[in-house]
Amino acid sequence: MTKALEPSFSRRQPADDTHGRNVCDHCDFVHYENPKIVVGSVVRHEGKILLCRRAIEPRKGYWTIPAGYLELNESPQQGAKREAMEEANADLKLGELLAVYTVERLSQVQILYRATLNSPEFSAGEESLEVQLFDWDEIPWDDIAFPTVHWILEHDRQVEAGEAKAPFENPEGQVADL
Amino acid sequence: MTKALEPSFSRRQPADDTHGRNVCDHCDFVHYENPKIVVGSVVRHEGKILLCRRAIEPRKGYWTIPAGYLELNESPQQGAKREAMEEANADLKLGELLAVYTVERLSQVQILYRATLNSPEFSAGEESLEVQLFDWDEIPWDDIAFPTVHWILEHDRQVEAGEAKAPFENPEGQVADL
Repeated sequence: MTKALEPSFSRRQPADDTHGRNVCDHCDFVHYENPKIVVGSVVRHEGKILLCRRAIEPRKGYWTIPAGYLELNESPQQGAKREAMEEANADLKLGELLAVYTVERLSQVQILYRATLNSPEFSAGEESLEVQLFDWDEIPWDDIAFPTVHWILEHDRQVEAGEAKAPFENPEGQVADL
Repeated sequence: MTKALEPSFSRRQPADDTHGRNVCDHCDFVHYENPKIVVGSVVRHEGKILLCRRAIEPRKGYWTIPAGYLELNESPQQGAKREAMEEANADLKLGELLAVYTVERLSQVQILYRATLNSPEFSAGEESLEVQLFDWDEIPWDDIAFPTVHWILEHDRQVEAGEAKAPFENPEGQVADL
């Protein structure tokens, strides 16, 4: 079919709704926007932690854990495994739930797991510039992509050291602003 | 503006995408569908558990915990409190994260908390026929709305009894089919 119109939405409250929504000016289609679920994992291998250097914006060139948006008809565990395969060609054995974080500014809920490698092979996927295993003291702390990556690495360290039990939520008073 | 057209979408894969999406036949608007987040809580007051009898489909007339879809720019905790206010006019003090469940069939992730009442007042909101506090043995087990309500009540009981620590995930092998 040939495209005949430009997309055009107005903010209106449908009759049976409690919130304003984006409604199509041409056909009254209601575009419900839902919070998004990010799934990912802290991957350990022989005491080291796997990080990916981002090949895409936002925060291109900075280091992060393998993570991304959950797709339809997928569990968070399946999504975390898929993201590690896409970004790091890494085959994960998924462990326990490590944290549930909220980034309200982005309407994002992050569901993050602990994981290990099923085999010690990995390489940069399309969305990564490089993938590397780091000892704790070698982690490039000044070049971490997002605040929640700092949180999750510290929370994983606490669980690994037996100082705390998962899962964690946002550190007190923190909203993950950059 | 007057509605000129009927909504019409076709399944197509946008050029820069990895999955098929619903694309508008009139204007090429891409309707991304994301998994939905349900937030809710097991509310205890003086040893009893608060349940709501649903006034709406699906499962109208059956009993459930206060829960519903997370809205944009809202944390799961805020959402769980809002749902209890909407469905049961109940003012919650939210406790720990109790479970993260997946219902793949519905592309739904449920994030559920423990909670108590800030004040012992509650009543049926618009989406409830009635709201009631139940002793464990009085819970109407044959008239529970959804499988995940069975799971969360049992998981909450285990935590309350000191038999297990939160959070829980889907019981082994279970997908929450009705």
